[in-house]
Amino acid sequence: MASVGFSVDGQPFVIPTLYGRSESTLYFHGSAASRMMKQLSTGISACATVTLTDSLVLARSAFHHSMNYRSVVAFGVAQLVSDPAEKRQALEVISEHLIPGRWSEVRAPSDKELKATAVIRFTIEEASAKVRTGPAADDEEDYVMPVWAGVLPLALQPGEAVPDARICVNPEPPQYIRNYATRLAR
Amino acid sequence: MASVGFSVDGQPFVIPTLYGRSESTLYFHGSAASRMMKQLSTGISACATVTLTDSLVLARSAFHHSMNYRSVVAFGVAQLVSDPAEKRQALEVISEHLIPGRWSEVRAPSDKELKATAVIRFTIEEASAKVRTGPAADDEEDYVMPVWAGVLPLALQPGEAVPDARICVNPEPPQYIRNYATRLAR
Repeated sequence: MASVGFSVDGQPFVIPTLYGRSESTLYFHGSAASRMMKQLSTGISACATVTLTDSLVLARSAFHHSMNYRSVVAFGVAQLVSDPAEKRQALEVISEHLIPGRWSEVRAPSDKELKATAVIRFTIEEASAKVRTGPAADDEEDYVMPVWAGVLPLALQPGEAVPDARICVNPEPPQYIRNYATRLAR
Repeated sequence: MASVGFSVDGQPFVIPTLYGRSESTLYFHGSAASRMMKQLSTGISACATVTLTDSLVLARSAFHHSMNYRSVVAFGVAQLVSDPAEKRQALEVISEHLIPGRWSEVRAPSDKELKATAVIRFTIEEASAKVRTGPAADDEEDYVMPVWAGVLPLALQPGEAVPDARICVNPEPPQYIRNYATRLAR
């Protein structure tokens, strides 16, 4: 999930959206009727931020509490993809980013579905990454405080897959869903 | 974690940040020297978005794939908190939002630490929430397709807490850390 920022008449918007990446291009998609897609179609400057929260860092002092995380903030220009071939390719990139192996198994978009979908090409011009890892760094004199300190790992985890009520194949999920935890760990 | 959006000379920025909420006010904090804190101190329009991803929704057609999620997009004005009492109160609100029960156990911020910390008051003027739940909605003619469909739940989960190497109390984490999964489920 990326948080995509853009401005309309001086008012900033931040909209969560799924994405895929191909080299220095990010692709977003959405209903052709949506406000975000219409705004991003106009070639405006935008920002896309992705954040993974890895752990809470508990120190002895309030001040030194922190979070371990990885984030990237990318700046660039958003443009509408109008070429149908690039559009199909972009949707595959988004799908394979989210669920590698899924695209080839499902019904591809029809021309009508493709028309109802807007695809945005976001060209990354500049990006910065931030990472924090490791334990708390307390002030030396605070280490004697009788308070628990440490790190609490946090991770997005898959639960048990629920087959659709009208499924007409073996309800056991495919390999790429059974192993989804490894996708999230990347 | 909130994604906070603001614009500087027409360039949108989206920065991930921890937050706390008190009625219709969100509080953010950071180093007084950080660019985000400096920009948000100037009374500018901003946007704060929080997103929880609940599950992947796998349909028979690429087009009907979706995500179950809950998100809120809040618009408002950001301002620097300069009153030291409100500043301390805001830091407690952020801390208790993240780790309820923690604030009273740790060393409170010193005057020097308070000076090094900027606190932003973000007054929500308008907000919109979006929620998707439930199974995939395929086109009727696609239900016969021999492809797995269903929902894969996703949730941020705590792992096993790691006590700090220099801990000088019982290394068993406090109740509010052992039960952190219930905090995340709220």
